[in-house]
This record gives sequence, C-alpha cells and structure tokens, in this order.
Amino acid sequence: MTTSYKGIAASPGIAIAQAVVVKQEHYVPVASTIVDAQAEWQRFEQALQAAKHDIERIYQLTHDKLGADHAEIFEGHLMMLEDPELIESVALAIKDEMLNAEFALHRTAQQFIQMLLELDDEMLRGRASDIQDIAGRILSHLRGVKHIDLSALDEDCIIIAHDLAPSDTAQLKLELVRGFITEAGSRTSHSAIMARSLELPAVVGVGQAILDVNNGAMLIIDGNKGEVHVHPSEQLLAHYEAEKLAYDAKQANLRKLVHEPSISTDGHRVELAANIGKLEDIERALQNGAEGIGLFRSEFLYMSRNTLPTEEEQFNSYKYALEKMNGKPVVIRTLDIGGDKDLPYLQLPKEDNPFLGQRALRFCLANPELFRTQLRALLRASVHGNLKIMFPMVAVLEELFEAKHLLAEERQRLLEEGIAVSDHIEVGIMVEVPSVAVSADLFAQHVDFFSIGTNDLIQYTMAADRMNKSLSYLYQPLHPAILRMVKMVIDAARQHGKWVGMCGEMAGDQNAVPLLLGLGLHEFSMSSSSILAARELITSLDQSQWSELAEQALQFTHSAAITQFVQQQLQR
Amino acid sequence: MTTSYKGIAASPGIAIAQAVVVKQEHYVPVASTIVDAQAEWQRFEQALQAAKHDIERIYQLTHDKLGADHAEIFEGHLMMLEDPELIESVALAIKDEMLNAEFALHRTAQQFIQMLLELDDEMLRGRASDIQDIAGRILSHLRGVKHIDLSALDEDCIIIAHDLAPSDTAQLKLELVRGFITEAGSRTSHSAIMARSLELPAVVGVGQAILDVNNGAMLIIDGNKGEVHVHPSEQLLAHYEAEKLAYDAKQANLRKLVHEPSISTDGHRVELAANIGKLEDIERALQNGAEGIGLFRSEFLYMSRNTLPTEEEQFNSYKYALEKMNGKPVVIRTLDIGGDKDLPYLQLPKEDNPFLGQRALRFCLANPELFRTQLRALLRASVHGNLKIMFPMVAVLEELFEAKHLLAEERQRLLEEGIAVSDHIEVGIMVEVPSVAVSADLFAQHVDFFSIGTNDLIQYTMAADRMNKSLSYLYQPLHPAILRMVKMVIDAARQHGKWVGMCGEMAGDQNAVPLLLGLGLHEFSMSSSSILAARELITSLDQSQWSELAEQALQFTHSAAITQFVQQQLQR
Repeated sequence: MTTSYKGIAASPGIAIAQAVVVKQEHYVPVASTIVDAQAEWQRFEQALQAAKHDIERIYQLTHDKLGADHAEIFEGHLMMLEDPELIESVALAIKDEMLNAEFALHRTAQQFIQMLLELDDEMLRGRASDIQDIAGRILSHLRGVKHIDLSALDEDCIIIAHDLAPSDTAQLKLELVRGFITEAGSRTSHSAIMARSLELPAVVGVGQAILDVNNGAMLIIDGNKGEVHVHPSEQLLAHYEAEKLAYDAKQANLRKLVHEPSISTDGHRVELAANIGKLEDIERALQNGAEGIGLFRSEFLYMSRNTLPTEEEQFNSYKYALEKMNGKPVVIRTLDIGGDKDLPYLQLPKEDNPFLGQRALRFCLANPELFRTQLRALLRASVHGNLKIMFPMVAVLEELFEAKHLLAEERQRLLEEGIAVSDHIEVGIMVEVPSVAVSADLFAQHVDFFSIGTNDLIQYTMAADRMNKSLSYLYQPLHPAILRMVKMVIDAARQHGKWVGMCGEMAGDQNAVPLLLGLGLHEFSMSSSSILAARELITSLDQSQWSELAEQALQFTHSAAITQFVQQQLQR
Repeated sequence: MTTSYKGIAASPGIAIAQAVVVKQEHYVPVASTIVDAQAEWQRFEQALQAAKHDIERIYQLTHDKLGADHAEIFEGHLMMLEDPELIESVALAIKDEMLNAEFALHRTAQQFIQMLLELDDEMLRGRASDIQDIAGRILSHLRGVKHIDLSALDEDCIIIAHDLAPSDTAQLKLELVRGFITEAGSRTSHSAIMARSLELPAVVGVGQAILDVNNGAMLIIDGNKGEVHVHPSEQLLAHYEAEKLAYDAKQANLRKLVHEPSISTDGHRVELAANIGKLEDIERALQNGAEGIGLFRSEFLYMSRNTLPTEEEQFNSYKYALEKMNGKPVVIRTLDIGGDKDLPYLQLPKEDNPFLGQRALRFCLANPELFRTQLRALLRASVHGNLKIMFPMVAVLEELFEAKHLLAEERQRLLEEGIAVSDHIEVGIMVEVPSVAVSADLFAQHVDFFSIGTNDLIQYTMAADRMNKSLSYLYQPLHPAILRMVKMVIDAARQHGKWVGMCGEMAGDQNAVPLLLGLGLHEFSMSSSSILAARELITSLDQSQWSELAEQALQFTHSAAITQFVQQQLQR
C-alpha cells in the first residue's frame, strides 16, 4: 500500500527509483581521562591527517565531476582542518586536561559551532554544518569507523538521509542518483541547494518516519508539490510516469529557449535578466538564458569575511562579472546592508526596526568613505563591459542627489589620476520605498532607469515585515495598491523616456508576468531557474492585448480576484 | 552679567522672577547590622505611618487646589505604601537579615524600581519615580530630616530643582510659582507634564550648573525656545518683558476663540478636535475649544494594569467620554497594541520589526474574543453620545470586512439580548498604511470616514522608523509623496460623499494646516494645546485660495521648497 509523506518542495521535478537509505549513526563521545597525553595527541594527529587525505580526494573528485565552483567548499574544509585555534584548543584539552581525543575534539567543535550559530551573518552560520562535517570525519578515523560511503551505489536510486553534508554529496555517483529526500533541512540547506544546482528533484524536512523506509523500496519524489510516495500503487505509478514524461518534456522544451529572444506574439521585446548573489551564479544565469544581470547584489563581497573588501578586490569582481557577461547589461546594486543583513565587523548599532532602519544607501551616505571605495571600484570596472549602477532604498530626491554627487566626484578624481572610466554608465535607483513609487515622476528626470524591488516595496506598502509568518497574508504582489504603484513608475518613466525593470520575486511570478508585460515593464530580473519559464510565457502573450487586460485587472478590489482574472485569461 | 543656559523647551511661555533653588540632598543609606529587629521594625512602621499622613495631607491639598485629576497620583502613592510585597520585603530584610531599616527600605525600593524600569510599558516605567518619591519620604521620617518643604514660599518665584516629584509640586503655593527649571528630566517627565498642565513655562534637562544659581537671583525662562537667562542685562530684561506681554496677549486672544467655530474667511467650516490618551484629557480638550475627540486612544484602558479590562470597565470609560463630550463626536480607535506599545500581561511574541508587525487591528483579528469584548463595550456605550468607531492599521479590504463582520455580529447579539445600540454609529478606518492611501477609492464605499494617521503613514511611506534618530531627516510631513497621498484620500472620500480627518501630528502643524485646509480636509485632530492656535490660523485663511495654492505646492519636488512656499504665502 502506498504511504505518502509531505515535506518541503526543495527542488522541482519528478523522480521514480528505489530507495537507498543512508543511516547516519549519531555518536556522541564521552569524556574519559587518559594517562599518556603524548600518545593521545599522536592519535589525534593521525586522524587529522587521514581526514585531510579524504577531503583532498573528495575535492579532486568533485572538481572533476562538478567543476571548480562545487569543489570550493572542500578547500574551505581543508583550511578549517588547519585552523590553529581549533587545533590549539584540542591540544590543550588533551595535554592540560588529560581528556581523550574524541571528547576533546567533540567539545571544541561544539564550541566553534555554538559561536558560529550565534552570529547574525547567515553565511557564517552556515559554516557550522561544515565544522560538524569535518569533526565527524576526524571522529570516524579516531574510532576506526568508516565514514558513510556513498560511492558504492551501483544502480539508479533516490537517496534518503537525515541530512546530507557537502562531503556526502560529493562522493555520490551522481549519474545514478535520481533525487534526494531528507528528514531535516529547509529550502536553503546544503542538500536543497545542491539538488537545485544539479537539477535533481528533492523534498526536504520530511520528518523522522522517512528514515524507516526500507532499502530498495520503490519511491516517487514529487519535487513540485513536496510529496514523497513509498510503495506506490500501480495507478499512482502510472500517473507519475506520465507526469514525469510531461515534466521532462516541458523542461527539454524550455531548454530550447536558452538562446531565443524574449518577444511577445505581437513583436514587443523585453529583457529577461538574472538576480545574482555571487560570482558563481553568472555561469548559471547564462546557462538559463539570461540576457543580462538585472540585480548584482554587491553585498556578498562584504559578507563572510572580517574586514571590508578593498577597492582592488571589488574592482576584480565587478570586472569579472562584466567580462563574463560579454557586453550584456550588468546592473550592480551598491551595498545593501542593514535590514536583515548585518556585517558583524562594522558593529552596526542594533535598531528597533531594522527594516525601517539605516540600511542600504542610507548607511552608505552616512559612511561616505566606505561608499566612495565601492564607487571607485565600479567606475574603474566600467570600461570592461556594460555596467549600470543602481542605488537601493532611496526615499527622497536629496539622497539621490547626494549619491550622484559622490559618484561624480570619484569619476573626476579617477580621470585626474589618468584612469579610464566609461562615458556610458547608466545610473538608476531601486523603487522599493513607497514615497518613490508615488512620486516617480519627480525622480524620472534624474535617473536613467528604475528597478522595482517588489519584495521590499510590498513590505513597506503593506507595512508588514515579509519575514513575519503571522502576516504572510499581507504579502500580496497582485494587490491593486502594488499594481497601481508599478503602473505609476512605468508611466512616469515612459514620459521621460527611461526604462523600468523589476528585480523582486514578482518579476518571475507566472501570474504577474502577463500584467507586467501589459503595463509596459521593460526588464524582468529573477532567479535564473525562473527565466526560461518566463520566456516561454512571454513568447505566448500578445503585449497589446495584455495592456488592455492589465487596465481591466486594475479595476478589481482584491488580489484574489486579480489572480483569478489572469488565470482565466491565460487559459483562453 | 547675564549667564544663559539651554535646555529642553518643556512648556511654552515666558516667566520673569527670582530664583528659589530647591537643594535636594542625595542621601544613600549604608547597610549596618542591628541587634533588636523588633525595635527596628517599629521604627520603620512609625516612619511609614508618618509618610502616610503626609501624603493624605498632600492629597487633600492637591484635590482642593488642582482638582481630583491631579490628586489621583497620591491615591496611587497611598496604595504603594500599603503594597504587601514591598512591606514584606522590607520586613524580611530587617527581621531575617538584621539590616537597618534605612538600608532595608532603600534596597527594596531599588529592586522595585529596577523591575519597573525593565518593563516595556512606558506608563509602568513612569511609576519608578513614584516609588523613589515615597521611599524618599519614608527615609526622611526614619532619619528625622524634614522633607523638602515648598509650602514656605512667600513671593513670586521660579523654582530650580534637580527634578520635581509629584509630592514636591503638590506642596507648591502655585499662585506664587511663575515657572520651573530642572537639571534633569525630559519633555515627558512629571515636572514637564505638570508645567504644561498648569500652563507655566518650563525648561528641563538644563544640566548641573543650574543648581549653582543663588537663591533670589533674577531669572528669565523662555519656555518657547528652551532658554534660561540668569542675572539678565537690562536690555535683555526689557526685551523679554515685551515678549512676555506679547505672548500673554496672544494667549489671551487665543482663549477668546475657545467657543468660536473654525470657519475660514470664505465661510468654509472644519472641525478642530483633540487626540486623547486618557479620560482626564477630555476636560483639557474642552477647555481648549475642542469640537470633538478625533482620536480616543483606547489602548490606555489596557495599559498600566495586569489583566485585560472587562467589558464593563470599558463600557464605563466610553460612556463617560461620550457623556462628557455631550453630543460632540467622539472617534474611538479600537485597541492599537504592538509596534512600540506592549501589553506585558499578554506576553506578545517578540518581533524583529514591531512597527511592521502584528499590531493594532491585525492583532485584534488574530484574537477575536478580546476584540469582541471591546466591540460590545463600544456598542453598548453608543447610546450615550455621538460615537464613531475607527479601526487602526488596516492594509487590505479583507481586514476591514472581517472587522465589520465581527461588529455586526456583536450588534446582533446585543439586540437579541435586549440591549440598546445606537443606529447611527459611523465606522471608519485610519489611513496609515500606504496601500490604503493609494487605493482609498476602493475603501471609500465601505467606510463612513477616513482619518489619516500621519505619524505612521510618513514612517511607512518613507520606510523609516520615526523613532530612529539617524533617520529623522526622512520624517517629512510636507514631502510631495505624503501630500499626494493625503490628496488621494480626500479626493476618493469626496467622490463617495465621505469625510476625512487627520489625527497625526501634522494636523496641528502650522505649515501643514493651510495646505490641508486647501486640500479639503474636514476634521483636524491634534493635542489640545495646539487647537486654539490652529483655529486662529484657519479663521484667517481663505479656503478656496488655499485650494489653488495647495495644487501649486504639489508641483514642488522637495519638502523644503513646499514649507518655504507656505510660509511666503502666509506672510503676504
């Protein structure tokens, strides 16, 4: 009989294969007193060396199979294994406290993990699981227990595990793995990110019962709905086999659109661009048919480190991105820190309402030296491609003038220093503060473009923290108030001959895209994985027809009615 | 030679008189071990009784001189003196720890103060100074030292003190006091509130040097600018004597407007109403010529207590307010909790961005039983006056419908129970969330009125916490975006025959009032102290002329330009 489980849809697609359950033993070392500290320390050092060899091997394996980007994490692991603080702490526990190596390592690792988990920086917090991973590996060697070996797979399978560490997934024979199911995890855990990047269906956070599934049991993963079916009935199996064929065919069709332009049936061309959060994302954006980068979140250059990035470091990153995009537009957003994004090393003051705080451009204008460094790096990089500079969180014209003034000063200085700067850098602003949306006509003559940041614009327009679960009902991209603001911005820009993009989640929303096209949005920037589906949709729509339909939609009073209207029109 | 000091302008007006410096000795008891706990306890009890007699006397004095409202605080003091927890704690320190009564009391009081200061509720925090006051009084009796006696004044004077406790000011021969200056304090400290309520000029937070002024020195208080001048030159004295005459004359003129209507020179009538935060404010509103209550902040009924107010308690308060206003409109806002207002006894979850959190109506809809209690109390009170019910923090129509649905259900239940409910209760919403401002036309057909809450509307429209000092430059009531939103709301309401009020600080701003009048605002609700000046201004303006001027003002791009434009027009 079919048993079904519900989890988090972490990576889309359908997989049908037998289960391989990875049982991870949960071993917690117990403290004991040793007699020979020297011998114990040697035992630890041997285990450490063995773990290093493992990871070097995994690094090579990953590098060859998945490329340098994926292998990078194991360089990080190797660095951690050589971290003098970590080793020193274990050494002291063994030599001064006469503790056994297992417990000395375990306690030290827990301390490091605790410390990392208390940080505000999500990326640093994420490194806690890396410490867990390497500590587990050293422990295995100390105990003479073999670390989970996933390289022994020999037929198509779906992996079920508590959670998957980077070193676990690295050992997988990926050509045999059809999908992942994990007991724990969220959409942003390593297993989920890895699955999306490998384009394998995955459901995570399914709960403990999933670990009781027998090895070899037939499984269906529905990565679109977040469902897992064990021992499916023949009927269900037939249903999913058909669905898998349809889904795979659809994906294959989408792939054909990678190099196609985004043109509506009546010949109206728009640009589909990608939002990126690190340099590695650029490759993926291109693979998914991005016609540009609509949002380059420059803050990643400032995060997961202990000091500000230098002008040179920033310049190199911007130059890399511009060159990699090879003349396609790259909209780089200046530092957007504050709100939910902290830089621990700057020791920003704690705010009562960080989303309404001194974030993004506000912070940069209050710290002009830091800002000037970024502006110089951008200006210097400008000659290497099609750069557009975008200021986030502008609320009033004074802020825009101040930012443009600093930019002009740095340009002048560079020119005086004999450094080349492009003459064609467009400068625009994000529209995410309601004041800008309702007075976009006042801003339009002073910018080259607008990019509507819907995540924040919705949050402020509804006065509802988008992270606050009890208010999720107020996150309504298709609310008349939001659509009116979008229209105000586009109309104002058009009157002044400027273009408008959108870089919030709404830009890739299948229900929003037709209305945005109809309202005259020029650039749609979204996560790479949404681009091809958006292109398929746009190439099936008549822009002038949707222009009229959007006007009709704006007459509705509720989001639900607008959503329904769009869906009905699409089904015609 | 004149010495001048700058402080916080706590209460407006000019005072010229000689100084009476109240030197408050700062005595901190030291712990010592006693031998006879019984005798020490009796000593404490005697001091306690003496303090009670003092306070009963002061209560009576205040009651006769200033009325029941002002005396209420001493009822609170008497209750604190009988607080079993406090007395028990002192008793244990004396009897079990063998501590001297002075130290036992001091330590206990400090513990209570600390506890109160850690609370989120500003009103409860305010009670810390009451504890300080009564503990000081008991200590004086324990030590046989006379408490500061301010009843000995015998000629016109200005009081200088570190800070003034309620029991200090109660003893003042007020007919002789011309103003207050305090070393410490803020606009919301007791001295400041008392001064405003007595309409005496006051400057607070002047700093320590002010205490070195000699008794009898000639002083000038400029409560408008927050300045103090000691030993003024003849020239300065002459200047301030003239200014005082002008100010007093202006005030006397304003007082003549108390019973006048608010009608522009071209016959356009508006309503000037008061914002109130407790029942005692109603009397003051009427004295200042309020034509209604435009904002009754019902949350005060829920604060400074340990349990929810019952339906009966609420009913009595609403009935009192309606009867006291005697047919004039009373707009009662339903519970606006959350944001910066906590109710500790409800143990609300901590939010990352409380101003964007589950506050006000959102909270009420999530806790319908609590909300129904308030709605029933309001409905029952409705037959006792001119009640209007207002929902705060509405963002989407669904919320309004839900709130109206609950209200209709409770009305039905009451009618079935045979309880009378008025047929003419207007129901409106606050406009403080940007989504409502830009879609006011969708709401207009479902409400009887709008009241624009500018403090929050500005905060959300600018995406800037209005409490965050580093963002104060973004609090721009006259920003084009804000004025446009105000216009959208008024225009939408007018089309549907509904009225619009404003209950944020902007409604009493002398630069904003002419524009608001011009845009067609119907009701201006503000703190009582601003009403007469607003009336004076409005009765000097031509509404139709300002209607045109407001249109012109809306063409400017900056707040500063708009402010300047208004001021120039007013000076013509």
